[in-house]
Amino acid sequence: MDKTHLTKEKIIAQAAPIFNQQGYSGTSISAIMAATGLKKGGIYNHFASKDELALAAFDYSINLIKQRYGQILKENSGNATGQLLGIINVLSDNAADSPVPGGCPVLNTAVESDDAHVLLRQRVREVMDEWHEMIGRIVARGIERGQFQPTVDGAALATILIALIEGAVMQSRLYHDPIHIRRAVDYINSYVQTTVVK
Amino acid sequence: MDKTHLTKEKIIAQAAPIFNQQGYSGTSISAIMAATGLKKGGIYNHFASKDELALAAFDYSINLIKQRYGQILKENSGNATGQLLGIINVLSDNAADSPVPGGCPVLNTAVESDDAHVLLRQRVREVMDEWHEMIGRIVARGIERGQFQPTVDGAALATILIALIEGAVMQSRLYHDPIHIRRAVDYINSYVQTTVVK
Repeated sequence: MDKTHLTKEKIIAQAAPIFNQQGYSGTSISAIMAATGLKKGGIYNHFASKDELALAAFDYSINLIKQRYGQILKENSGNATGQLLGIINVLSDNAADSPVPGGCPVLNTAVESDDAHVLLRQRVREVMDEWHEMIGRIVARGIERGQFQPTVDGAALATILIALIEGAVMQSRLYHDPIHIRRAVDYINSYVQTTVVK
Repeated sequence: MDKTHLTKEKIIAQAAPIFNQQGYSGTSISAIMAATGLKKGGIYNHFASKDELALAAFDYSINLIKQRYGQILKENSGNATGQLLGIINVLSDNAADSPVPGGCPVLNTAVESDDAHVLLRQRVREVMDEWHEMIGRIVARGIERGQFQPTVDGAALATILIALIEGAVMQSRLYHDPIHIRRAVDYINSYVQTTVVK
């Protein structure tokens, strides 16, 4: 990577936790200047606008989470239960051990952008689509292989699992207390073992 | 109410949906000036700061939701199942038919304030405490009266139900599609009938 690209990547990596903690509206260019040690012009050399930097920072945060669940899917190849519960663990890490400080970037950006930022909302929808499709695919293969009950509705299960995790991440972060995410993960484990797995 | 109080109440009622849709950081005083038709001085006559107005707007939004579930608790007095499912319906209305436009003020404010705004976070924690205590109380009475299984853990159930609803509100608002909240409510109804109710 040449020096220009390196600087650009460094700005994105340093801006990502600021956007994730302070939100899009709450992040000022001066906060990014302070974090990177660059002047305003030094930042806008690489990005046409705050929007462009925010989108790059969101993609950066999402990619770190994707690497985690990509690894899990590979390690549990052929084992639908391991894949499903592994993904739940990756997403639940966003309560306290997120790869980018500030919690789950999908939850944060979805809640902030639903009424306010069309471009960010579009990007979050794409990631949420991927999560739904990933869970749907795991369920379909689990049924095919006889590991899951044939009656499991993959689309409904995706909504329920994502809701449980994201709603518990919200509570655990609000209270700075991991108990809510632990309750949700325990609940999901027991639900999957008794109702989804054959 | 005298005229000063009426003006103050009017500013709060007009600011509440702006804060709920745009967030605390995303709400500018000029947006509130535009909505109220007042000048900056006319707003700051009634509030010492944007913080003070934001807290009053949050309380206003929460009180509208409280009125709804207060009514439900009263109508279903003595019937723990009716109270529990009634509250779920009130909270799920925050996806599409919120008394203040912009979705659930607890979800919105929790996600925005967890890293950023100490005063708002404290206020959200108090409301979340109330929700947890309310569900805990309904479960305790339901068990006492022999309507609920004696093994139901009220604290864990509160985490799970609130997570499901808030996580589904987030998805339905992100997609502008009520299906996620419908799936969560169906799931909760069936779960409560088969696992909580005796």
